[in-house]
Amino acid sequence: TFIRGMQTVTLIPGDGIGPEISAAVMNIFEAAKTPISWEERNVTAIQGPGGKWMIPPDAKESMDRNKIGLKGPLKTPIAAGHPSMNLLLRKTFDLYANVRPCVSIEGYKTPYTDVNLVTIRENTEGEYSGIEHLIVDGVVQSIKLITEQASQRIAEYAFEYARNNQRASVTAVHKANIMRMSDGLFLRKCREAAEKHKDVKFTEMYLDTVCLNMVQDPTQFDVLVMPNLYGDILSDLCAGLIGGLGVTPSGNIGANGVAIFESVHGTAPDIAGKDMANPTALLLSAVMMLRHMGLHDYAKKIETACFDTIREKKVLTKDLGGNSKCSEFTEAICQRVRDMD
Amino acid sequence: TFIRGMQTVTLIPGDGIGPEISAAVMNIFEAAKTPISWEERNVTAIQGPGGKWMIPPDAKESMDRNKIGLKGPLKTPIAAGHPSMNLLLRKTFDLYANVRPCVSIEGYKTPYTDVNLVTIRENTEGEYSGIEHLIVDGVVQSIKLITEQASQRIAEYAFEYARNNQRASVTAVHKANIMRMSDGLFLRKCREAAEKHKDVKFTEMYLDTVCLNMVQDPTQFDVLVMPNLYGDILSDLCAGLIGGLGVTPSGNIGANGVAIFESVHGTAPDIAGKDMANPTALLLSAVMMLRHMGLHDYAKKIETACFDTIREKKVLTKDLGGNSKCSEFTEAICQRVRDMD
Ligand SMILES: CC(C)[C@H](C(=O)O)[C@@H](O)C(=O)O
Ligand SMILES: CC(C)[C@H](C(=O)O)[C@@H](O)C(=O)O
Repeated sequence: TFIRGMQTVTLIPGDGIGPEISAAVMNIFEAAKTPISWEERNVTAIQGPGGKWMIPPDAKESMDRNKIGLKGPLKTPIAAGHPSMNLLLRKTFDLYANVRPCVSIEGYKTPYTDVNLVTIRENTEGEYSGIEHLIVDGVVQSIKLITEQASQRIAEYAFEYARNNQRASVTAVHKANIMRMSDGLFLRKCREAAEKHKDVKFTEMYLDTVCLNMVQDPTQFDVLVMPNLYGDILSDLCAGLIGGLGVTPSGNIGANGVAIFESVHGTAPDIAGKDMANPTALLLSAVMMLRHMGLHDYAKKIETACFDTIREKKVLTKDLGGNSKCSEFTEAICQRVRDMD
Repeated sequence: TFIRGMQTVTLIPGDGIGPEISAAVMNIFEAAKTPISWEERNVTAIQGPGGKWMIPPDAKESMDRNKIGLKGPLKTPIAAGHPSMNLLLRKTFDLYANVRPCVSIEGYKTPYTDVNLVTIRENTEGEYSGIEHLIVDGVVQSIKLITEQASQRIAEYAFEYARNNQRASVTAVHKANIMRMSDGLFLRKCREAAEKHKDVKFTEMYLDTVCLNMVQDPTQFDVLVMPNLYGDILSDLCAGLIGGLGVTPSGNIGANGVAIFESVHGTAPDIAGKDMANPTALLLSAVMMLRHMGLHDYAKKIETACFDTIREKKVLTKDLGGNSKCSEFTEAICQRVRDMD
């Protein structure tokens, strides 16, 4: 039944704690009367003609139609030659930008306060090309592939993101002193994008220097843009600064509005089904999704309810330092959302 | 004049603040009556036949003869095609292991206490192969080269290091989930070395996970071994945890006892010649050098004098939070060294 103004989102609950935290998000969205309806899909890969791994057609069709997905953690398949599900999804929908805002959460103690930055990672090439060769016995090479097109696309995205999110500066992270051609090309495209967006400040910094400065004073950073592997590293490092993957949202953005938002933590099989999981990362990813869809008021409402609940410290899951169940934490957020009406 | 029991070390004072901090180290060594005589050499690269960059023959000859070097910061040459001096030195003397102990310094406040780990970085290949190609216009590839021989050598070194330095565990840092062949080969060699050194605990961890865990709780790590670029990143990150490059020592180790110890900070041209530089990183590198040469008592004495001076907080250079000159800080350490006799 089609409800006026409703938008449909493909929901991939995922494995392990995935279904529990997905249910938590759905409950909170309902409490907030968010105009979203969910279409659940399983993305466990299947083998197509020629043995090629692909996501099931009905999941693909749902994403193609809805354009927007929300995804819980997926377990890494153990079949030989099976690609990571995350990589397969990025590839299938050409999700070229991985965006991770890292913002300190008031009331959740870490060695850092006032972290407020965003890592923007090129999500399709670089060290993740998958091209490797055995040259002679005992000598192996992996290819890092950098293209003008993908570099330009991510550089443009970073500046557009900065502008649209009232962020003042973009830092390009690179090792062009070592990889002069590949990181050099990436850097050149960032410089060109900077020329076109003079309203946003642009700086460039070596990856090693960024890591060093990051742990000494993360408040100096704003938006950071970088090739694939550097983004893998730096986004996890930054997540660590604000409390880990349990509280860090993530979005994978493609062209024409296509996007999948996801929690990047694992499936936590040890606590799966025990009502102990922390839904915060998936919830904050869903909040990113709402902003991506232009539903800013709902986003603000849910985000505020989540942060207020954490700041109050009364009802918290175990990993956040409390004794409450996932369902209790969820209900505390729902209650706040309802109270805002 | 040859003095009985004296060992000669090649001293490369370097650029910017290099000469000042080298003088500081020499003064402290003299106060401690360390049986070292110095042979100063300049390593500014020259162009050999065919335009090949190389370090001057007299510097090479000195290192070949003495085997041990101590080196201050070198400025990055700006000539087109000029390699980094650091890379040239690593290559010239086949310094295959970069070793950086990161130990929290009592009295020097950072967000972390009790950091006590060592990064061991493969120093000759990987992403630093220097092989890059333009495939077609706008498409560039860089080659990450991993060999069985270099991987085995660094893995062996890491376990030997752990054993010789009473360290309980070695963690191999990799992305073999993405670079299955190259990092896979590196990891396999680490596993094989682990099999041979059952007295040392062995674990493996993804680079991104290491970065996340590192900023959350660095005390969980002991010895870490990894390919070139990951070491570049992780060693700087870890330096950040204990106060930065101004207090972090480094050693580049080759075969048959050859080694160059160095401070890894920059030349700081803005304060060069002003008696303001902090000699700690070079001094602690020189302490590593003494241990490498088997001069453990001298190493202990100088290290203790340095740490006591920092802990007391009376005479500190500006970057360490004090008001003293380089020469005053140096003299405070010399005084302590003399008082120990
Ligand atoms: C699961 C893995 C393939 C992935 C990566 O390396 O990109 C993960 O670490 C991530 O950051 O999404
Ligand atoms: C100066 C530079 C070439 C070097 C590197 O990237 O290895 C430096 O960062 C280091 O760690 O010694």
